[in-house]
Amino acid sequence: MLIARVIGTTVSTVKDEKISGQKLLVVRQTDERGTAVGKPYVAIDTVGVGVGELVLTCAGSSARQTSQTKDCPVDAVIMAVIDTLEVDGEITFSKS
Amino acid sequence: MLIARVIGTTVSTVKDEKISGQKLLVVRQTDERGTAVGKPYVAIDTVGVGVGELVLTCAGSSARQTSQTKDCPVDAVIMAVIDTLEVDGEITFSKS
Amino acid sequence: MLIARVIGTTVSTVKDEKISGQKLLVVRQTDERGTAVGKPYVAIDTVGVGVGELVLTCAGSSARQTSQTKDCPVDAVIMAVIDTLEVDGEITFSKS
Amino acid sequence: MLIARVIGTTVSTVKDEKISGQKLLVVRQTDERGTAVGKPYVAIDTVGVGVGELVLTCAGSSARQTSQTKDCPVDAVIMAVIDTLEVDGEITFSKS
Amino acid sequence: MLIARVIGTTVSTVKDEKISGQKLLVVRQTDERGTAVGKPYVAIDTVGVGVGELVLTCAGSSARQTSQTKDCPVDAVIMAVIDTLEVDGEITFSKS
Repeated sequence: MLIARVIGTTVSTVKDEKISGQKLLVVRQTDERGTAVGKPYVAIDTVGVGVGELVLTCAGSSARQTSQTKDCPVDAVIMAVIDTLEVDGEITFSKS
Repeated sequence: MLIARVIGTTVSTVKDEKISGQKLLVVRQTDERGTAVGKPYVAIDTVGVGVGELVLTCAGSSARQTSQTKDCPVDAVIMAVIDTLEVDGEITFSKS
Repeated sequence: MLIARVIGTTVSTVKDEKISGQKLLVVRQTDERGTAVGKPYVAIDTVGVGVGELVLTCAGSSARQTSQTKDCPVDAVIMAVIDTLEVDGEITFSKS
Repeated sequence: MLIARVIGTTVSTVKDEKISGQKLLVVRQTDERGTAVGKPYVAIDTVGVGVGELVLTCAGSSARQTSQTKDCPVDAVIMAVIDTLEVDGEITFSKS
Repeated sequence: MLIARVIGTTVSTVKDEKISGQKLLVVRQTDERGTAVGKPYVAIDTVGVGVGELVLTCAGSSARQTSQTKDCPVDAVIMAVIDTLEVDGEITFSKS
């Protein structure tokens, strides 16, 4: 899974019927401190997150293993909200 | 999913029979403003888009989850047209 | 799918029995003009191509969706020969 | 599989129910000497490792082939602890 | 498939039971001349190779399509030994 920050939202009227009603969030991978690295991508929200939160995204066929995304043409989902990250004995990110 | 712009078309006479009649579009990944980044790739159009539009593409086995691409040897599909992108509270892309 | 040029051939005597008799071609991803970018990789030919031709390659589990590669340990196939590419209103590649 | 070092831990309260109780470790890919390269990612621990250990991680649908991660929305698992790496006739990494 | 050179071996005592007894080789992707490019990764040997040989590796779910790796948590296998590579009319690699 990638550590990613939710940075925005996508509005799409014309889309595959299987993703109708699903929330398409714009995210960017971050490092262990929550600093953005790499290009933005879009993931389906399956846990109820807001813009600004740090999350985990899961890619590929594994993105279809949630009850919400089963058999859908989606290759990235948000499946966890990160509360804290601890790296090398240091809290590098804390949600509150 | 990747944010991508449709930049062109591919004509192919000799191809796997399963993709006969499918529209092969040339796309390039973009950032949240629709600015192209990275190399071009080819995706199957499943929603009816035109050159110039900003879309979402889905990769890997998930690209076979649309009714049109089921069991096909394709690893990228366009499954949504982007109307607007909002990032950090700003509309970074709008279709019209 | 990636746009790629067939640049060579691979001879392999010791290999998985499922790919016995299959043609292993060396390809390189190209841009929309057929100019090589990136590192060479090897793809199974399923449409009958020759060295020098511009093709589409399909990766991952989707590479096993042709009748020839079903259930085979292969992660890249050539599933289309490109006749022409048109990008931004210009013919950027033409086969003949 | 990638050679990776376990560098930290993730705490997540809100997450997909299928990964409830699973240990989410922060890892970084390393070279054959255990020197970190690339960005951090998160993998499910299926073999019982601690921070600092060198491990193998497996990605994609293969990450769901352990008894612990079957049908879970996870795309990276730790499925082996590395004792030693020998490259070009030299022991480049030893656990103890 | 990637062209890769076998550069070493991995010893792992604690690992998923499904890969017990399987040979874990360290490989690096090469170009068409056998010159290493990119980072090392680990692949399961399914054809009986030795350190120094040039091979093809197959990734993702396709890595589970050999009889030896079926249903295993592995995302890379060696499924062919390369005898010769010919690129642009020149033998760029020969095993003997």
